[in-house]
Amino acid sequence: MKAVQVTGYHRNLELREVAEPEISGPLDVVVRVGAAGVCRTDLHILEGQWAEKSGVTLPYTIGHENAGWVHAVGDAVTNVAVGDKVILHPLMTCGLCRACRLGDDVHCENSRFPGIDTAGGYAEYLLTSARSCVKLDDSLEPADVAALADAGLTAQHAAAKAAKVLRPGDVCVVIGAGGLGHIGVQCLKAMSAATLVVLDRNPAALKLAEQIGADVTIVADGSHVDTVLDLTGGHGAEAVIDFVGEGGSTAEGVRMLRRAGSYYVVGYGENLDVPTIDIISTEISFVGNLVGSYTDLQDLMVLAAQGKVKLHTAQYRLEQFQQAVDDLSAGRVRGRAILIP
Amino acid sequence: MKAVQVTGYHRNLELREVAEPEISGPLDVVVRVGAAGVCRTDLHILEGQWAEKSGVTLPYTIGHENAGWVHAVGDAVTNVAVGDKVILHPLMTCGLCRACRLGDDVHCENSRFPGIDTAGGYAEYLLTSARSCVKLDDSLEPADVAALADAGLTAQHAAAKAAKVLRPGDVCVVIGAGGLGHIGVQCLKAMSAATLVVLDRNPAALKLAEQIGADVTIVADGSHVDTVLDLTGGHGAEAVIDFVGEGGSTAEGVRMLRRAGSYYVVGYGENLDVPTIDIISTEISFVGNLVGSYTDLQDLMVLAAQGKVKLHTAQYRLEQFQQAVDDLSAGRVRGRAILIP
Amino acid sequence: MKAVQVTGYHRNLELREVAEPEISGPLDVVVRVGAAGVCRTDLHILEGQWAEKSGVTLPYTIGHENAGWVHAVGDAVTNVAVGDKVILHPLMTCGLCRACRLGDDVHCENSRFPGIDTAGGYAEYLLTSARSCVKLDDSLEPADVAALADAGLTAQHAAAKAAKVLRPGDVCVVIGAGGLGHIGVQCLKAMSAATLVVLDRNPAALKLAEQIGADVTIVADGSHVDTVLDLTGGHGAEAVIDFVGEGGSTAEGVRMLRRAGSYYVVGYGENLDVPTIDIISTEISFVGNLVGSYTDLQDLMVLAAQGKVKLHTAQYRLEQFQQAVDDLSAGRVRGRAILIP
Amino acid sequence: MKAVQVTGYHRNLELREVAEPEISGPLDVVVRVGAAGVCRTDLHILEGQWAEKSGVTLPYTIGHENAGWVHAVGDAVTNVAVGDKVILHPLMTCGLCRACRLGDDVHCENSRFPGIDTAGGYAEYLLTSARSCVKLDDSLEPADVAALADAGLTAQHAAAKAAKVLRPGDVCVVIGAGGLGHIGVQCLKAMSAATLVVLDRNPAALKLAEQIGADVTIVADGSHVDTVLDLTGGHGAEAVIDFVGEGGSTAEGVRMLRRAGSYYVVGYGENLDVPTIDIISTEISFVGNLVGSYTDLQDLMVLAAQGKVKLHTAQYRLEQFQQAVDDLSAGRVRGRAILIP
Repeated sequence: MKAVQVTGYHRNLELREVAEPEISGPLDVVVRVGAAGVCRTDLHILEGQWAEKSGVTLPYTIGHENAGWVHAVGDAVTNVAVGDKVILHPLMTCGLCRACRLGDDVHCENSRFPGIDTAGGYAEYLLTSARSCVKLDDSLEPADVAALADAGLTAQHAAAKAAKVLRPGDVCVVIGAGGLGHIGVQCLKAMSAATLVVLDRNPAALKLAEQIGADVTIVADGSHVDTVLDLTGGHGAEAVIDFVGEGGSTAEGVRMLRRAGSYYVVGYGENLDVPTIDIISTEISFVGNLVGSYTDLQDLMVLAAQGKVKLHTAQYRLEQFQQAVDDLSAGRVRGRAILIP
Repeated sequence: MKAVQVTGYHRNLELREVAEPEISGPLDVVVRVGAAGVCRTDLHILEGQWAEKSGVTLPYTIGHENAGWVHAVGDAVTNVAVGDKVILHPLMTCGLCRACRLGDDVHCENSRFPGIDTAGGYAEYLLTSARSCVKLDDSLEPADVAALADAGLTAQHAAAKAAKVLRPGDVCVVIGAGGLGHIGVQCLKAMSAATLVVLDRNPAALKLAEQIGADVTIVADGSHVDTVLDLTGGHGAEAVIDFVGEGGSTAEGVRMLRRAGSYYVVGYGENLDVPTIDIISTEISFVGNLVGSYTDLQDLMVLAAQGKVKLHTAQYRLEQFQQAVDDLSAGRVRGRAILIP
Repeated sequence: MKAVQVTGYHRNLELREVAEPEISGPLDVVVRVGAAGVCRTDLHILEGQWAEKSGVTLPYTIGHENAGWVHAVGDAVTNVAVGDKVILHPLMTCGLCRACRLGDDVHCENSRFPGIDTAGGYAEYLLTSARSCVKLDDSLEPADVAALADAGLTAQHAAAKAAKVLRPGDVCVVIGAGGLGHIGVQCLKAMSAATLVVLDRNPAALKLAEQIGADVTIVADGSHVDTVLDLTGGHGAEAVIDFVGEGGSTAEGVRMLRRAGSYYVVGYGENLDVPTIDIISTEISFVGNLVGSYTDLQDLMVLAAQGKVKLHTAQYRLEQFQQAVDDLSAGRVRGRAILIP
Repeated sequence: MKAVQVTGYHRNLELREVAEPEISGPLDVVVRVGAAGVCRTDLHILEGQWAEKSGVTLPYTIGHENAGWVHAVGDAVTNVAVGDKVILHPLMTCGLCRACRLGDDVHCENSRFPGIDTAGGYAEYLLTSARSCVKLDDSLEPADVAALADAGLTAQHAAAKAAKVLRPGDVCVVIGAGGLGHIGVQCLKAMSAATLVVLDRNPAALKLAEQIGADVTIVADGSHVDTVLDLTGGHGAEAVIDFVGEGGSTAEGVRMLRRAGSYYVVGYGENLDVPTIDIISTEISFVGNLVGSYTDLQDLMVLAAQGKVKLHTAQYRLEQFQQAVDDLSAGRVRGRAILIP
């Protein structure tokens, strides 16, 4: 079958002919790939940033946001059947460790990460586990949702944590209306009656944010912290969800937080650097957010099927992988790029 | 001032001239009544059903769903000022007992209940406490929201409890699309992404339910339990909110409940009568629901200001009280009747 | 190997020679049985009460409270190794359904129940799944803990739910100081600072309860509801955990419950029969309790290893199975009977 | 009456004759002081560190950890009566703002802080509010508990937050076994079955920690982070409660934290400075902790009455205030110093 592989760092991906994956274990599932998201992490992989951390052996197939159709299943697979439309959770988890047993499978002690440390989805077929397969509603197609599998799931996970404690009218500031923020706003709107205040440097991104549920949008032009404080009677917001995490966003975000408020760290880059006296005197919290669990992905697919979470995509055939990567790298992709084998 | 009073049980209310209430304590607030909801409980009061329980001395002014404008305040009132538009929480609570201190003021050990055990709002002015006053958003008028103060608050309270645990796509069955169910559906829609299945014997009520957020409506014609089971793959619903509580609704409701599901009891009349073996083998829960707390009422007013909770009202001038009572009694009121002094 | 089997209902168990179980699937685990609890459910099985419900084919080996040593493992087993001391969760769950993925494996849609619907632990060896194996601390032996695997786990599960909401000094009434109540009291003591009030008809059971953590013990002699009300200033208890569920215990229990209190149903037999008006006017809840999840069993084993949960046992050799059954049936067992192969 | 007052910064306190406080408002309570804790904050006040922040006018009476007997009450006081033994919550809160209504009175928008911004308890009598009075159990005396009113309450509050999520055997690292840590360990022990690992530079403090519930004690000698990691199989602790917050404790504490773990910030001084990539990749949280709420203080008094929280105190007569301050300043006080008027 055809697969797009990393054959070396600091060089282009290559389309190669490789063996089709086969079922060997009872929980194995082979998926015919319907769509694979092209993500900024893929660029970082090519730059070698993940080489040491993942320990992957080259060449290997990348692509960690995958959806498609079940092609073959192992003996013990009961949750999906051949022909089912599925989206794949980014991790293959063991199901046996304490974290998995608590439903917190993202912290599985024995997980693998297709597209990062084992063969991913820039290919015609992909080997995964029954534990990674979420069945899609009839109304959804792999190409519609593949790009939600990782970045979208991260945004949903953070939004769900916040929604659980936000009461009607509580102010939730969303820093960054890009790919993740865009999904986060839709999830928050679907799951809470909080007032959503969205910040971004880019007025076009804010325009889109308004259409999908932002109650207030503010251009991050230097006066935005004061604007949020004014808006909240000087008190600040009950929650800040920071999809940026660099360029000073955390320091600004903390200034926008109300006493006893919660700061959700999603984007990353800079250090969170806050005097402990400020943390205790206002009793604020900082909540780290990784990708969501398997059940979070089920929930996100429900929101997608309900029409509450939508994603703009730019489609490329698998053979156009270089074009997709180049477009992403040059900032020419509106929404998310996906490869269609 | 004019006030509509109970002068005896099993006889009509009377419009009488009584003294205006005055500030005597530092937390006292006198409200110029803008609207008072006419509620089925008022009919029950006239029938004497509350006589013993409330211990009220006749004559007294009824009306327990009140909103208006602050007319005078005691020395220690800091949360509202003269001229403010307010809706009044149905209870006047002490603020000192353990329940009040936990924010669970509905279970205050020293509360009074204007319109039930002390003078209510079928009058030009009403004496209340700063602790009962919730300020209204500029966009809301007393006549729009008064009828939410008690029945609406009960529906919101139950909906908020359920919304806290409902995940996207979880099925929530709402039994009864009348006054409370109508508000409950709107609250659930605003605060969760659950799938709302609404049952009622009256197709017209279901039509309205559809317009305000029901995802599925089912006429309660005897086959409705099976319909819900079919809809949920035989598993039943994660939650049932029962706004009826009589005529066999609880037995039917329990049959519609999924393993580990929660049954919210709001309406009342019959006994909940379930084999303990069924409770433990399916691990279901039953959750009682009284009126909401002060902060629940704040939340409900936020939902109203956001336009997410709306109420149909039929307005009567205070002098038309008999007409309002008669219309309610005869089932001629669409939505909720309110008196405008 | 030797196994004690049900060969027909309404007749004695038989010791028979059967084939040793073998590994066939990758998550299979064969355990050399170290101890198997003899439970009242075993008596009910022989009376045919479970025949239809379980659908089991005779003859089969009973015993659903098992602990021992890992004897052989399938290819994919990562959580235990040959030689490990383990206790077995009573259910073998699929790990793939929504309930399993949420960590709520007790509600697995595809579970089996060794000793009830498939071969159990009254035998030298037992086939189970890696998903059922909880490793024991060095300080614990199979014979010490086997009888905690089902009944003990049920008590721990209910206690953990209650402990999560009980604040220091909240009153928790425990109805029944028998096998389950005994474990429940110890778990509550370990996990909360609630005031534990234990009721039982049997003064000897109360004496034991005092030694293991009961703060107050009350003989259930007819005046006990009043005694609890006196003790709580007339308010009642924040929680009631009912390990009895028959003989009028639920009606009495409800009378002992405080406003906004929670009633945990564990024992069963009679109907819970409560006016809905009482449920809503006091805003009480009823919480069903089944056996605990896999992680609950891990927690219970921690409490056992900490020395906070102890169990009296009466040991019998496997061949003495009839004696054990007879003793249990005649009420001659102090604590729990276990068979040692 | 006699009162110890701040008459200027950078100079000694003075014992002066001042007017007894009187009841003027309906919720006022005058307390005859039974004991007042001498706290390190009092030293900071004298150094002028609070001058600007508090805005207090000199001279004024200090002392913010107070207990005693109710001497006089206003008209509307229902929760205490003359003669009652009480401990006083450090804040006088309004009871009307949203935070107060949610039970989160520590974040009251209109609070006063006796001993900091208004007259405190180094005096014979103290004016407070009914909302600050917690009745003491018969078994407790003001001198036993006064020093728990602020620092102790802070420790209890953090411990209660952690206990709510700690499961049996989860590892909770307590950094600092001084005044607060000492109380925190006792609270954690009473409310959870977590494994308590206590760190301190001072072996004598650790010896005491062992006696009051620490499961493991580790001298913070530079190898302690590795010791904790070894102890937890390299995974780290589910929770870290940091009562130090300076001298590098936060960086060390973060290294000891398990994936998805929670870091409770109580002590303060340095900055929390953590790469956002570390926060998201391990999904850890940081939870700020201020003093506890009114109901937390009620809970702490329950723990004290149960004998589960004890405090060593060194008693001084009010006139010996200078000795007490000098002893505290010189590190000569074992446990907490209190003044007895």
